[in-house]
This record gives sequence, C-alpha cells and structure tokens, in this order.
Amino acid sequence: MKHSFGSDNHSGVHPQILKAIENVNADYSLSYSEDDYSQRVLHSIEHLLGDSCSAFFVLNGTGANILSLSCLADSSNSIICASTAHINTDECGAPEKFIGCKVTPVNHINGKIYPDEVQKYLTGFGFQHHSQPKVISISQPTEFGTVYTVEEIKQLSSLIHSFGGYLHMDGSRLANAASSLNLSFKQITNDSGVDALSFGGTKNGLLIGEVVVFFSNVNTSKTLYFRKQMTQLYSKSRFIAAQFEEYLKGNLCLSMASHSNSMAKYLENRLKEIDYIKISRPVETNAVFAYIPKTKYEKISKKHFFYIWDEQTMEVRWMCSFNTQKNNIDDFINDLKEL
Amino acid sequence: MKHSFGSDNHSGVHPQILKAIENVNADYSLSYSEDDYSQRVLHSIEHLLGDSCSAFFVLNGTGANILSLSCLADSSNSIICASTAHINTDECGAPEKFIGCKVTPVNHINGKIYPDEVQKYLTGFGFQHHSQPKVISISQPTEFGTVYTVEEIKQLSSLIHSFGGYLHMDGSRLANAASSLNLSFKQITNDSGVDALSFGGTKNGLLIGEVVVFFSNVNTSKTLYFRKQMTQLYSKSRFIAAQFEEYLKGNLCLSMASHSNSMAKYLENRLKEIDYIKISRPVETNAVFAYIPKTKYEKISKKHFFYIWDEQTMEVRWMCSFNTQKNNIDDFINDLKEL
Amino acid sequence: MKHSFGSDNHSGVHPQILKAIENVNADYSLSYSEDDYSQRVLHSIEHLLGDSCSAFFVLNGTGANILSLSCLADSSNSIICASTAHINTDECGAPEKFIGCKVTPVNHINGKIYPDEVQKYLTGFGFQHHSQPKVISISQPTEFGTVYTVEEIKQLSSLIHSFGGYLHMDGSRLANAASSLNLSFKQITNDSGVDALSFGGTKNGLLIGEVVVFFSNVNTSKTLYFRKQMTQLYSKSRFIAAQFEEYLKGNLCLSMASHSNSMAKYLENRLKEIDYIKISRPVETNAVFAYIPKTKYEKISKKHFFYIWDEQTMEVRWMCSFNTQKNNIDDFINDLKEL
Amino acid sequence: MKHSFGSDNHSGVHPQILKAIENVNADYSLSYSEDDYSQRVLHSIEHLLGDSCSAFFVLNGTGANILSLSCLADSSNSIICASTAHINTDECGAPEKFIGCKVTPVNHINGKIYPDEVQKYLTGFGFQHHSQPKVISISQPTEFGTVYTVEEIKQLSSLIHSFGGYLHMDGSRLANAASSLNLSFKQITNDSGVDALSFGGTKNGLLIGEVVVFFSNVNTSKTLYFRKQMTQLYSKSRFIAAQFEEYLKGNLCLSMASHSNSMAKYLENRLKEIDYIKISRPVETNAVFAYIPKTKYEKISKKHFFYIWDEQTMEVRWMCSFNTQKNNIDDFINDLKEL
Repeated sequence: MKHSFGSDNHSGVHPQILKAIENVNADYSLSYSEDDYSQRVLHSIEHLLGDSCSAFFVLNGTGANILSLSCLADSSNSIICASTAHINTDECGAPEKFIGCKVTPVNHINGKIYPDEVQKYLTGFGFQHHSQPKVISISQPTEFGTVYTVEEIKQLSSLIHSFGGYLHMDGSRLANAASSLNLSFKQITNDSGVDALSFGGTKNGLLIGEVVVFFSNVNTSKTLYFRKQMTQLYSKSRFIAAQFEEYLKGNLCLSMASHSNSMAKYLENRLKEIDYIKISRPVETNAVFAYIPKTKYEKISKKHFFYIWDEQTMEVRWMCSFNTQKNNIDDFINDLKEL
Repeated sequence: MKHSFGSDNHSGVHPQILKAIENVNADYSLSYSEDDYSQRVLHSIEHLLGDSCSAFFVLNGTGANILSLSCLADSSNSIICASTAHINTDECGAPEKFIGCKVTPVNHINGKIYPDEVQKYLTGFGFQHHSQPKVISISQPTEFGTVYTVEEIKQLSSLIHSFGGYLHMDGSRLANAASSLNLSFKQITNDSGVDALSFGGTKNGLLIGEVVVFFSNVNTSKTLYFRKQMTQLYSKSRFIAAQFEEYLKGNLCLSMASHSNSMAKYLENRLKEIDYIKISRPVETNAVFAYIPKTKYEKISKKHFFYIWDEQTMEVRWMCSFNTQKNNIDDFINDLKEL
Repeated sequence: MKHSFGSDNHSGVHPQILKAIENVNADYSLSYSEDDYSQRVLHSIEHLLGDSCSAFFVLNGTGANILSLSCLADSSNSIICASTAHINTDECGAPEKFIGCKVTPVNHINGKIYPDEVQKYLTGFGFQHHSQPKVISISQPTEFGTVYTVEEIKQLSSLIHSFGGYLHMDGSRLANAASSLNLSFKQITNDSGVDALSFGGTKNGLLIGEVVVFFSNVNTSKTLYFRKQMTQLYSKSRFIAAQFEEYLKGNLCLSMASHSNSMAKYLENRLKEIDYIKISRPVETNAVFAYIPKTKYEKISKKHFFYIWDEQTMEVRWMCSFNTQKNNIDDFINDLKEL
Repeated sequence: MKHSFGSDNHSGVHPQILKAIENVNADYSLSYSEDDYSQRVLHSIEHLLGDSCSAFFVLNGTGANILSLSCLADSSNSIICASTAHINTDECGAPEKFIGCKVTPVNHINGKIYPDEVQKYLTGFGFQHHSQPKVISISQPTEFGTVYTVEEIKQLSSLIHSFGGYLHMDGSRLANAASSLNLSFKQITNDSGVDALSFGGTKNGLLIGEVVVFFSNVNTSKTLYFRKQMTQLYSKSRFIAAQFEEYLKGNLCLSMASHSNSMAKYLENRLKEIDYIKISRPVETNAVFAYIPKTKYEKISKKHFFYIWDEQTMEVRWMCSFNTQKNNIDDFINDLKEL
C-alpha cells in the first residue's frame, strides 16, 4: 500500500533504526539480554526513568502488558481497566490465560477511567469468594488517543496504592503521550506513581521490541522466569537493544511522535472542511476518531484504508504515523470532498 | 566478542537477510500476517512442505513449540519427550503453564528417544486419574546435535498415531538436520508422519522469526487465537515474511546449515589432536560435545566462550554457526594445544 | 445459631437425606463414580432430564459451574453472563483460572439478562485479537431469586446457538425455580435449549454434592479428566448418589423447594407491615431483597443474621430454606416492629 | 460388594463419624469455615500439630495437595517428587494445570525418595530458562505403603530448606504412618521440617474431608482465595469439622489406622503360605504389594476385588481398611489355596 490510515503499525521501520540494527550485526554476542550491550542499554533506560527501576526487553505489546501484570498480580486478583483497554478487548484473553486473574472492565470517558468509577470495584477485600482488586491498568495514550494528565495519573495511583495495589501503564504509544503533554517519560510514569510500564516502540518506527519497566517496590524476582515462560525472551537481544538506543538518544523517538501527533491534528483540522464527518473524540495524539455515513465510508474505503471502530455508530479511526505525510492527508481530504 | 562457540544464536544476521528486511521497508502494509506478502510467503512454505498443511509465523522457538503443542493437546493430556528436550529443560515450564498439561520426560540415547522407551508411558488410556498421553515431541536435530533418520521418525509417528495422538517436531535447527541427512524438509516432516513442526530460522542466520506448520488432520481452528493469547502475534509481519522468503529461496538456508555442519565436523576432527579431550556424542550437525578436564576448561574458557553442559561429568558443548570460520577453529585448537 | 436468614446453606441436612447416607454405608463399594449404584443414580438423573444427556457428580457449586463451562469453552473464548452472576462475582475468578477464558459481565434486570444486551457482546467472530464469544451463562433462579421463563431461556439459547455456541445454566437452586414455575426440570433445561446444567442440591437440604448435566451435542470426551484435574472427583461417590436418589425420588426435592419459596413469599408479605422497609426485587423463589435504613439494620442484625447485599444502597438479602419456619419469620417481624 | 481389597476408600464411613455428623445437624450455622465450630476444630488441629501453623478444610486429597503446593510454588517453579507420587501419576495433571509449574519425577525405592537422587534436580538456580526447583513433595506413607523415618524426612527438609525451598507431605493416609512409626502427627510433620501437609481422613473412615496445614514460615495470605478458586471451599463446613473432631479426639483415628495396618501385616503373613505369590514391597502400613501369576490373578479376581499395579510385572496391590476383618483375609487365603 502506498499509504494507510489503518494503524501506526502499517508503517515500516525508520531508516535510522534499520541502520542501528546493521551497526551491531558484526561479531558475536551473548544472547537473551545477557550481553553487555543489552545490559548497558537497559541501564540507560532505567536511568532515563529515574532511580530504582528495572527494565526488561520483550517482543511485543501484549507480551509487555502480560509480563508487567504478571509481576503485579496473581490468579486471586482482579485487574481494573477501561472496558476499551487493549488488555480487555484486543489480547484475546491473554491476561486471564497467563495470570488466571479476573479482568474487570469499567466505564470510561473517551478511553480514560476516573477514580469515581474505579472505586465501585475496589470492594470485597478479604472476602474469600471475591477476586481481590490489585491493579489498575491505564493506557497512555488511550485506545482513543486521549491522554491522562499527571494529576489524573496521580489520582489513580494514590487510590490503588491506598489499597496496597499497583498502577500499570500500557504505554504502547508512550512517546505520543509524552510529546502531547510536553513532559518527560519520567514525569508521566515514575513521578506520577506508575508501578509498571509497558514502554512501546514498534508503533513508533521500530522493527520489533518493547520494554517493561518496574518501579520502586515491585517484586521482580520472578520476572526473568515469567518472561521466558510466556515466550517473550528473545535470543538475539542486541538487535532490540540497538533499536532502543537509537530510539532514545538524540531526538528520534520524540520527533517521530510529535510528527505523527501533528499529522493527526492537521487531519482533524482539514476534516472540519467535510460537513458529513463529525469528529467524535478529542484529538490529543496520533489518532483521529469520527463518525462518517456508511455510504460515504463504503466509497472512500476503496481508496483509503482505515478501520471502522464501531459498526453500530459508524465511528471510524484514522491513525497517523512517523511517516505520514501532509500530502497523504491532502489527498484523502480531496477524495472525501469529491464523494 | 570476536568469536563464540557458545551458541549459534551468538552469531548475528546473515547480510542477505538484513538486505531482505530493508527491501520490504518501503510503503505501508497490513499487519498481523494479514498482508498479501506475508500470506504469499506462508503459502510458499506450505507448498514446500507438501499439500494440506498450514503455516503460521511466530516470534521465537519457545513460541513455536507452545503454539504447536497447544493445538495438539490440552490440559488433560501428557506430552512425551526426551528428558533432555528443550521443552522439558529450557522453556521454564512453558508447556505446563500455557497448556496445563503434563510433560513426561523419558530416557534418551544422545538426545533421541525410541519406541521401546516411549511405550512405557503410553498407558492409562481412559483411566480418569491419569493424564492422557497424546503427543510425542522430538527435536530434529536433538539438543545433542544428533539426527533422527526418516525410519526412526516414522516409527514414532506410527506408534503415536496408533493411539490417536500426534508427533511434534521441534525443528529449531531443522536446516541442519535436512542438510545432514541430505533430505528435503518435506521428507523429514510431512512424509515421515510429523503432525506439527516448529520450523526455526533464528539459530541459522535470521534476525527473528520462526514458522509453525500443521499437517493434514490437525485442527487449526484455534491456532490464530492461541497465537495471540500466548503473545506470539507479531504486528509488522512483513519483516518475518521477508526473512523466510530470502531464507528459503535459492540456497541460503541450506548453505548456511551445511556450512555450520561442516565446521562442526572440522572441529571434531581437529579435536582428535587433543589427547585430553574426548568427544562424547556423534557429531551429526553443528554441535560438538566432549569431555574436558576441569583444569583445562578453566584456562581455555578465559579466551574462548562455550558452555558446560554437565558440571558433574565436565561435558561441554561447542556450537558452530553460519559464520564460524576455519581460522576460529584453528585458533581454538592452537590454544588448546598450548595449555 | 437458632435461625439464620443469611443463606440457605446455613441450614443443615434434611433428615431423610442423612438417613439415605446411612443406608448405603454398609459393605464395600467401588469409588470415583465407578460403582453400579452411582451409575444407576446418574442414569436415573439422565432419564429425568430427557434423552441423550450425560450426568456427572461433583462436589460443590463452583465445581459444577467450572466443569460445565470447561466442556463448553476453552481459553480462546468468552463467557457472557450477568454482572451479578455467581461465576462473575463469587467464585474468586475460578473460570478465568481453570479455563483461562474471558468472563464478560453484561447489564441485567434483577439478575436476568436479555438478548438485546447480550447481543452487544456477540462480536469479533473470526477476529484474531478478540476472545471468541462461545457461552451464555445464566443462573436459574438468579442471584436475586428471580426466575427466567421458558420463553426467555429459549430466546437466549436460540441466540447463542445461532453463533454455534452454548447456553449454560447455573442451577444451584434449580428446584426453587422449577417449583416457582411449576414446570419440570426437563422443561426448563433440555426442552428450553440448555446445553449444560449445574444442578445443585446442597442449598436445598443436601449434605454435599451437585450434578453436572450435558445435553445433546456437547463433547464430553474430556469431562472425566477435567473433573479429576479440577479436584472435583469424589472417592466415596455412593454417598452423593444416595443423596440424589433420595432427593429426586418421591417429593422431597420439590417439597423442600416449594416450602422455602412459600416462606419467602410469607416473609415478603409480612415485611409489607414494616413501613421503613422497601422490597427491592420481585420475590419469585426463596430470596427476599429489600432496602432497610442503616440504623435499623444495625439494631436488628444483632439478633437476626442476614447479609447486606450492597453497602451503598443498604439493600439486604433474606434467604429462606427448607427448614425455615413461620415462627422464625414472625419473630423477625415482631423484632422489626419493636425497633 | 461384601468386601474389597481394592482400596481403603471402598470402605464406607465409621459409625462414630456418621453419628458426629448427625450431632451437628441441628440448628443453623455460618458456612464456608466461618462458623465458630469449624474455627474451633481447626484451632484444635493447629494445636495438635504445634505452634504457628494454620489449618484449612478442603474436600479431597487432590484438593489438599494442590492447595498445599499452590501456596509453596508458582508457575516458575518445579516440584520434585517420586515418579510414583500421587501428584505425578494420579491427579490427571492437576499441579501442572492449577499451578502451571513443572512436576519433576525422580527415581524412588519402594516409593521413597532420597537426597542423593533429589539433588540431581536441584540445579539451574537463577538460570532464566529453567524451572526453579522449589518444593520436594513426599507421600507419607508412600503409594507403596512404606514409611519415611523422622531422620529421612529431616534429611529432605534440610536439603530443600538449604535452597530456600519447602517440603510438602502428602498425608492422605497420615494416621497409618503415625501408627506404624508409633510417633505423633507433630513429630512426623512439624518437628521433622515439613512446611505443608495434606492431612487426609477419607481413606481412614471419614465420609469426606481433608485438612491442609501450613507450618511456620509459609505465606498463607493467598490460601483462602486459592481454595475458593480451585473449587475446594465447602459451604456446610460444620460437617467436615464434626468428622475431624470425632476423628482426632479419643482414639478413633489411630485405632482405625492401627487396625488396618495390622490387617495388612496379617495378610502378609498369611500370604507366605501361598508359594506362587511373592511379596514385592515392605509391608509397613495398610498396603500389601506382591507378584502373582497372571493365570492365578484371573481366577481369584473373579471372587475378590483388587487392582493390578503393573501389568508388565503382574505386581498387584491389596489394601486393608478400618473395617477389614480377619475372616475377609482368611477367606481370601483359602480361596488362593484352592486355585
């Protein structure tokens, strides 16, 4: 495809990332994250996110989420998340399967959950018949592209910490959130009370690879074994390390994210020219959601690829990525106008 | 490291493979194996292995094994394998965790298992207290680098088929076995009665990626969901497809494997010059196992990296890979002689 | 305690049931349901419920539900139920743990779910990221004591059958529903399209024991193994068989149920004399739900035991059982009046 | 059947136990072990076994084992046991299913395992690919009826404690072991370094019910939830409590065990009169194992029920129970003589 609004993983790999992979291809190296180079890159990530955290490479976003959650909860627990959370709707039950726990979906506003709603499920502590609430999991940005403020994150982390539990952040597009808020990774995670982070890269120009980060008081004595057991241990780890080194040094990570965010903003603005389309969610990162009449969808989708989010309401999603170009958007708008 | 005998995954990626990745990086593409290109490559693999088989991309060897086995067995079953099998010793209990089944280790000869020994565990059918035997899993080549003949594979597949069960082959180094036997992939799998195959590439020059193949009568209606749920679904699938296309077209796959096999043979022959070393297993692919006195090990291992296989007996393992060079071996032999 | 409205399992065992246990205590008997007597009783249950069904003894209600569901669904599936369902709120995540599947809670009216609401979750079929909907589970009577009509059950079974799925009925108090509807067990299960039934007895006067029944087309080839594996296989099975024989022959089962139902009705009527209490749910079996002011609750609960259902709204539950007596209720009403 | 040597669970319930059940049937009682009476009986069991232990009621032996083990190990661990252990051969993979861990069978002598053999599997600590050894599980008495001495238990507990692990004892026939050794329950468990105990009763005259006991330093904060989740929480708990109160007060428990032990000894002695039968295992509790020619087996088994233990060697098992009578044995011997 020449272009797709379908997903930010429809894009390929940023050339600098590919180059970084090539650069570490010479010679031999220990595997399974045991090489000095992987260790060095992991330490630099730990440094970036503040003191006393531990970083682990994994292969993909579901792996990052399940490894994170498996170190925060066990089968006697429940994990509270937005009903729209990736872990609830798009991982084919991986948390239930691997952890054996309950996933409790709660009502959201544009993908974000708030203490009032969460609190309804923080019950039954000590009651032997009841899955014990232990983790709140939020997506930052959410599956609707919206972003939690630091204050909102802190409210949720304080709430769950007051019950001895943990806050997990699914940051498969974390760079887009950081760029949107104009805050550092540390500020929106460690400093906001996040206990475990799925730190993604693949949706923002990497070939493959994510990082799981645990903060201060999480027990990580089982993490290596759970990672292996859940099939997320990668042999030739230097090739993930190289990507993250390149991603996080200089400006690459944030420049890609701010680009895709700005493209979404540009798309949103241009969509206002189309009277039959109604933006349905605040555009805060690289996603644009809108309602479109079914007949229009059927025509435009022959030429431009994007997904229907809700068949009932005909809400659709357009994703921008690190290599979305203005002219991709202009072409799309022109075609919408011609319908 | 300039060189390592530690593992064939201490090597990097073959330049042609990296080039193939670059070549598919332009443009946009559907993800999660749903793009035409991934589908085309999968079909070519299915064609290579004979009619009526189904191929699926996964990320790594443990993922390949668990996806294979999860479509052959459920928690009420037992999986019979050599006590030395990767699924028994090196996957941190992944089969037990994901499938919930029993893994039954049986005695082996140089990593290979035989009907006589397996038969002892083909009991308790219909007895409600007993895990029901359902799968024999063999590694081809084995963890000791030895190779099953077609006849030996057929004996095991006939045996387990007679009980309505399945034969799984862990082929993380399948090319090395095919090269050693001078037989096609199809001959040592489909034609020999194998029901599910973990077809590896990462240990033979790929960056990342394996293929799971199911033959004729296996029910694959759950495979897509199990793959997702076990965190083995890769978004940017074209980059695994590109590697396998390059790997299997022309001569690359077998030329790498035959090279590493021949390097192991060369190493074995040269080791015969060292009187304090005793080869412990038949050298049939790219691994050389031998006993070495502990004092010698302690000296040589400062300069050359390789693993002790058994602390008790001081059996050690040297692996050759696609980029092992004769001079790596000559240097090693010279250093052994100087001890 | 002299009396409790806390639960129908606060009552003991009906004397006829205890007597039946004693009567089979002589001599020796095969165990694990393999004795002729257990088989005979199971067959009589199968006969009672219609042709082509299979009955299995289990130990308790959670065991009955999990065994039922594990034969209808696997880890790739979702099970749809009322958010108030026992399997969702009171089994500490047993379905997620044992089956590894997703449990999807849906909105209910007085504990009952309806096609309109269920249909919202019958989506994503064939989509590899999504837990595949497979089972609707309903409680008959519900956790609020309400009862599905045959028509309502048929609507749900038709709906899920149209997607190739199954209807499960949690009948931990099935006799109370049958008595309320004045219909046979067969009419409200097999004839209404139920595919698997948890048929309880412990809440209606048994010592211990439940029965799982699978109808027509369910694959029960794994049931024996799953039962053992989930720790629900009882050795001295004759003692469950004896209870169910006594329970189902003559009038015992329904006479106990109709008694507890009528006691609940009597309680409801008498509660109308108390102006500060407001009945909150239709009284259709042996449960009465109502709102009571917190100050009143605190006083009355010192003398009469019952549970708060919802701390927020001060909705409470009174259960009647096979040995609840009119004078227990009259005493309670008198005490309420004196507050 | 008038009599069976098939299993000690082919016997019914001791009349005193049935009487004890009847005696607590009056009135109402809290359920799920939350009633004062259940608590009182549990405390008396804790007192019997020494300080700082915690006792929990469960329903059956597999439940007791899995609850014990699930509090000692998680999915990253391995549990080491005799290849003949009940948890390895007769629970249909329940440990693998519920805990997700590896069960490692080791060589035994008459069902007993020893430090030398166990030590071979205490390897790979800290190695991320390897299931981490955590628990040794022994059966006391073993499945062959043999008994560990206090010294032997202490050797195993010291060994596993030195690695930070735990010793589990499957005491489904614990009273038979205590009687055989003429030692108290405390001496052969708590005082010998046992960390978790499955304390059985059903095989020694109870109707249903077992107790799980955790000693000193085991974390039991999850036990209640795991018990519920694994379907082992019994509602009308007073009826298990009543059995154990009767079982442990006075002499009932040990008098039943010493009777069945002495019957086995009597059987062993009388079998010496039969020249074609060869006792195969030391008779230390209530089991007698022997080899018998197949032709003899076929005749005698028409009249007397017992199980073949090993089809290959024609080793068979005779179990004596609390109500085995001398004349049952004499009749059997007479019939053997007449073959």
